[in-house]
Amino acid sequence: MTSPVDGPNCPVPHGVYRQIQLGHGSGGKMSAALLAERFLPHFGNPTLTKLGDAAVVDVASSRLAVSTDTFVVRPLEFPGGNIGTLAIHGTVNDLAMMGARAKYLTAGFVLEEGLELLTLDRIIAEMARAASEAGVVIITGDTKVVERGKADGVFINTTGVGEMDAAFMPAPERARPGDAVLVSGPIGRHGIAVMAVREGMAFEAEVESDTANLSPLVELLRGAVGSAVHVLRDPTRGGMASALNEIARAAGVGIMLDETAIPIPGPVSAACEMLGFDPLYVANEGIMVAIVDHDSSELALAALRAHPLGTEAVVIGRVVPEHAGLVALRTAIGGTRVVDMLPGDQLPRIC
Amino acid sequence: MTSPVDGPNCPVPHGVYRQIQLGHGSGGKMSAALLAERFLPHFGNPTLTKLGDAAVVDVASSRLAVSTDTFVVRPLEFPGGNIGTLAIHGTVNDLAMMGARAKYLTAGFVLEEGLELLTLDRIIAEMARAASEAGVVIITGDTKVVERGKADGVFINTTGVGEMDAAFMPAPERARPGDAVLVSGPIGRHGIAVMAVREGMAFEAEVESDTANLSPLVELLRGAVGSAVHVLRDPTRGGMASALNEIARAAGVGIMLDETAIPIPGPVSAACEMLGFDPLYVANEGIMVAIVDHDSSELALAALRAHPLGTEAVVIGRVVPEHAGLVALRTAIGGTRVVDMLPGDQLPRIC
Repeated sequence: MTSPVDGPNCPVPHGVYRQIQLGHGSGGKMSAALLAERFLPHFGNPTLTKLGDAAVVDVASSRLAVSTDTFVVRPLEFPGGNIGTLAIHGTVNDLAMMGARAKYLTAGFVLEEGLELLTLDRIIAEMARAASEAGVVIITGDTKVVERGKADGVFINTTGVGEMDAAFMPAPERARPGDAVLVSGPIGRHGIAVMAVREGMAFEAEVESDTANLSPLVELLRGAVGSAVHVLRDPTRGGMASALNEIARAAGVGIMLDETAIPIPGPVSAACEMLGFDPLYVANEGIMVAIVDHDSSELALAALRAHPLGTEAVVIGRVVPEHAGLVALRTAIGGTRVVDMLPGDQLPRIC
Repeated sequence: MTSPVDGPNCPVPHGVYRQIQLGHGSGGKMSAALLAERFLPHFGNPTLTKLGDAAVVDVASSRLAVSTDTFVVRPLEFPGGNIGTLAIHGTVNDLAMMGARAKYLTAGFVLEEGLELLTLDRIIAEMARAASEAGVVIITGDTKVVERGKADGVFINTTGVGEMDAAFMPAPERARPGDAVLVSGPIGRHGIAVMAVREGMAFEAEVESDTANLSPLVELLRGAVGSAVHVLRDPTRGGMASALNEIARAAGVGIMLDETAIPIPGPVSAACEMLGFDPLYVANEGIMVAIVDHDSSELALAALRAHPLGTEAVVIGRVVPEHAGLVALRTAIGGTRVVDMLPGDQLPRIC
C-alpha cells in the first residue's frame, strides 16, 4: 500500500494514497488508476474491461426486467455484510421477485473524499463475491467523487437486467382471495443488525443481517408449483407490513395474518421491545413473501424448506375477500388489528 | 404548496412540506406521496406507473447497449440546464456514442434532507422534458433520502438500455491512421458555464452549458457515411484531451490536432485565460468527436452541419501512425506539444 505501483503510463503514484482524493473522480489518470487497481481486479470480465461509454450484451429473451436501486446504508459495514453485499442482493432480488433471472448489473459509485481505500476494497470484494455467487456479471460502471462532507462514505447504485419467461410472471395484482401467504424465513434481522452497530448496542446474541440472494428459492418454487406462485416480494425498506400493504392495494384484496405464525428470532424480538419497534416494519434483505394458490401451499413450503435459506418457511396468513386494500393481524390473544403502512421511517438509512 | 393534498389513503399532509424530510425515503406513506405528487405527474407512463420492484420491457434487438452514470454536478442549476438535463443527456449520449438507440432509462435519486421541493420539481420537469425530446422512457426508479449534510442536494443515477445494430458499431479501437478527427461544435461551454455560476464570476457574455441530446447528429452521420464512422465520443469529464487520449490508447494510434482549427468560443477562451484553464480539458455535454474514414470526411461534415447542433462542425486533426497512444497538437505558432491526460481535476463536480 505504501509504494508507488504505477507503470509508465501513470506517473502519479496512486498506490501511495490511503484515502479517496477528489482527483479520483476527475476522469483523468487518477480515475484510470483507481479503476485499474481497485475495481477491475475484482470485477474484471471481458465486457467491463473494454471500459467503453456503455457495455454491449446479447440477450436471448425479447422480454426483459430492469430494476434500479441506490444503497445508502449507514454504517457501511455491519454483521453479515456491507453496502456492497446489499447492492448486489437488493437488485438481483428485485428482479427475482418479478420472476426474472438476473443476468447483468451496472454499478455507479459516489465516493466521499477521504474514504479509506481499504474500506472501499472490502466493499468491492464483497460485491464481486455476491455477484459471482448470484451468477450476474457487472458489465459497466461509473465512479464520482464529491468533497468531504458532501456524501457519507459510499453510495452505490446498481441497475440490473434480467430475462423474463412469459410462463412465470408473479405480480402484486395477482393475489386472489383464498391464496396462502408464505414467508421464507424469520423476519427483522437486517434492520436490527444495522441498528445495533449504528447505536453501539450489545444484545445477548449478535443479530446478523439476513442479506442473501433469493433467486435459488424462486427457482425451487417455480420448479415445484410454477404459475401457482401469484406474488413474490422481498420485504426490505418498510418491512413486511409495507410489502403486504402494497400487495393488498395492488390486488384489491385483504390480507389476514396470524401473529403466532410469524417467525421472529428471539434477539430481534428483544431488540424491538427495547427500542419500541414493531418487527413487522423492520427491513429484511434475505427473505421473501410468496403468495401462492391455496392448493399448492404445502408443495410450495416443501420446496422452500429444501434450501438452507428456507428451512424456517411457514404460512403466516391468507388472502381474504374482506377489507380490500388492508392488512389485518389476528393477535396472539385473539383480537384483530389493522397493520397499516407507516407514514415515515422507523429506521432510516437501512439499505 | 401550502394545503394538504392527500387522499384518504394518505393521511399525512405531504403537501404542506416545502423541503425533503427523512421520512420521504422511508418506503412508507411519505415515500408513496412523494412519488405520486412529484415524480409520476412528470414521468408517468404505463410501465413506471405500475411501480413494481422492476420494470418489464420488450426489446426488438438481441444485442443491447447498457450505460450507467451518476450525476453530482454542483450547483444543481446553471445557465442552459440543471442536473436533470445532464442526467438524461449524459446517458442517452453514452449510448449514442456506441451506435445504440436509447430506449429505456432508469433513474435513482439520493436526496438530501432539507432539499427544497421546488428545486426538485424543476429538476424533475427538466428530466421529463429532456427524456421526451430524446424519445426515451423512464421505466423504473428509486429514491433514497439521507440526513442533512450527508449528500449535496441531489445526486442522480441514470442507467440506459439501447438497441444495437451490428451494421453500425463505432468503437475507440477502430480509429485508423489516415482517419479525420471531427468535432461537432465549439468546446468548453459546459465546464465554464458551471464554473462561472459556482464561483460567482461574471463574463461580458454569459456562457451557457451546451448540454444536448446528440442522437440526431449520430443518426445524420450514420445516414450519410454509415460504417465509415469509426469512433464516436462525447468529451465530457476530462474534456477533449482525455477523450482523445483514451481513443489513441485503445486503437494504438497517434492523434495530431491542429490548434488553429479547434473551435473555442471567445468567452470560453477569456474565462480559461483568467482562470488558468486549458479549454482542451474542460467538460462538454453537447458536442461529440467523430473519427471517420478520410474519404468520407467531407460528407460527414456536411451531414453534421445540416443539424442546428452541428453548424460549426469542423475537422480538427487526423489519426497518424506515429507516436502511438499519444495525442499531439500543432500550435498556432508552428510548434508541436503533447496533449497528455491530466492526473486529477481541473474542475471537480462538473457532471
